[in-house]
Amino acid sequence: MNISVIGAGTCNDRIYSLAEEVGKLIAQRGGILYTGGLGGVMEAASKGAMETGGTTVGILPGISKKDANPFITIPVTTGLSHARNIIVVRSADAVIAVAGEYGTLSEIAIALKLGKPVIGIDTWDSIEGVIRVNSPEEAVNKAWELSS
Amino acid sequence: MNISVIGAGTCNDRIYSLAEEVGKLIAQRGGILYTGGLGGVMEAASKGAMETGGTTVGILPGISKKDANPFITIPVTTGLSHARNIIVVRSADAVIAVAGEYGTLSEIAIALKLGKPVIGIDTWDSIEGVIRVNSPEEAVNKAWELSS
Amino acid sequence: MNISVIGAGTCNDRIYSLAEEVGKLIAQRGGILYTGGLGGVMEAASKGAMETGGTTVGILPGISKKDANPFITIPVTTGLSHARNIIVVRSADAVIAVAGEYGTLSEIAIALKLGKPVIGIDTWDSIEGVIRVNSPEEAVNKAWELSS
Amino acid sequence: MNISVIGAGTCNDRIYSLAEEVGKLIAQRGGILYTGGLGGVMEAASKGAMETGGTTVGILPGISKKDANPFITIPVTTGLSHARNIIVVRSADAVIAVAGEYGTLSEIAIALKLGKPVIGIDTWDSIEGVIRVNSPEEAVNKAWELSS
Repeated sequence: MNISVIGAGTCNDRIYSLAEEVGKLIAQRGGILYTGGLGGVMEAASKGAMETGGTTVGILPGISKKDANPFITIPVTTGLSHARNIIVVRSADAVIAVAGEYGTLSEIAIALKLGKPVIGIDTWDSIEGVIRVNSPEEAVNKAWELSS
Repeated sequence: MNISVIGAGTCNDRIYSLAEEVGKLIAQRGGILYTGGLGGVMEAASKGAMETGGTTVGILPGISKKDANPFITIPVTTGLSHARNIIVVRSADAVIAVAGEYGTLSEIAIALKLGKPVIGIDTWDSIEGVIRVNSPEEAVNKAWELSS
Repeated sequence: MNISVIGAGTCNDRIYSLAEEVGKLIAQRGGILYTGGLGGVMEAASKGAMETGGTTVGILPGISKKDANPFITIPVTTGLSHARNIIVVRSADAVIAVAGEYGTLSEIAIALKLGKPVIGIDTWDSIEGVIRVNSPEEAVNKAWELSS
Repeated sequence: MNISVIGAGTCNDRIYSLAEEVGKLIAQRGGILYTGGLGGVMEAASKGAMETGGTTVGILPGISKKDANPFITIPVTTGLSHARNIIVVRSADAVIAVAGEYGTLSEIAIALKLGKPVIGIDTWDSIEGVIRVNSPEEAVNKAWELSS
């Protein structure tokens, strides 16, 4: 299963912990984690997954793999700036959004446009189509359930 | 001035008329119109602008300029599918959203992320940062005002 | 007719003159000129076309329309870096290469891959499939002939 | 080390064997293999790497991971058509070209433009800058040597 975790490049400790737990649970189930490869939620989820032995793909906006956070095992260097958001979403069987700002909203919208399941924790959950959950466990369960 | 008009690829008559009027007003002021080049709101705005003597750029998702609606004077064939949305937004000094669905939402979010003015008629105006207006005149006035 | 002129971002006076003449001839025939929007051959062709009253589309790699040379009437701001080369080629009915280096070679190769006519002056003309010509007149004649 | 192997989507048995051996040697050294994810040389290299326990990233042009050959462990679904070639090249510390046609030539040119080492077996080795080698061993040795 290929799961993308999306969220802002900076976040507070509570959101970081949530995203880290999401990453851990994805890796425990044997899923491959895709993120935008940078900091904040992307880093937290990658940390949780990598430390659990999982594979973490970072779809980077820039041109150097050095931009990746330290928990990316597979850097993909696009040089496409924000257009790389589309690839993060397209590569996923399901998308989990943790908090997030306008960049995350753009990814949620593209995912819904593409008909992918979008599960949200503390995010733009007023958007119709986002499946609102309250915990990392629930998020990851839903991701597997909806993309099987 | 470069103005992008975004909105869904199919729409009802009322929305079509609004978008057509927006296109007409952009052309009257000498602006260049950018859209995604397809039907619905994109076609309506292009029709309004072209019939007023304006230039209409269509940033197409596919690989053939034949995909463009008949009111596109400058087709740009990207072959990038939805990633072309980013180019539509990036090319604009201001973005006017007329109604629209998830694709439009993704463009609104990217525009806000990039710090571009986003003016909305009958659209995702619950999104913080979208400037809500009630008429094509107001939309085009705002676009010029905010990007000067 | 939509014609892309490709070539390096810096060039000597002789090449500049050739490219300027190519642009002029494209505009005289009513073609729309597409380039990568920057300096050198791209600027020269745009200058020739614009000063002849033609439309010049600049498919820019960066995120600001200020990057465009002064002879671009329609800037398209992609933010895609070198990936914008593909759009320059895809938007064309025929491609004319004037001199050029590795970036130009990549565009020639993509154009040939896509089955577009590629006409070359003083360029990578050892590549099979490139139609070698000796003058701007011959280049533009061939472009029209092969894409009609 | 991140190594991209590029080449045509269909190839004869001799080329297939060469590419498979290249993939195997990359995996034996602990490198991550990046390809365009489809058939021919891309498949052969991925087969060699995967069967040696390596990680194989497939940067796909289309929108479905089902397009990937059976030896891709990490599909990246771009939906960008040929523009994904740039990502294949950008993600690499060094590029190894095995045979190949115009698509491969475009990747070689972009890699040289970006200043990446390009090692070629039976490919467009008349292009200045391509390092010509005669065996998979030599290719992989060169790749490590030049990107360290």
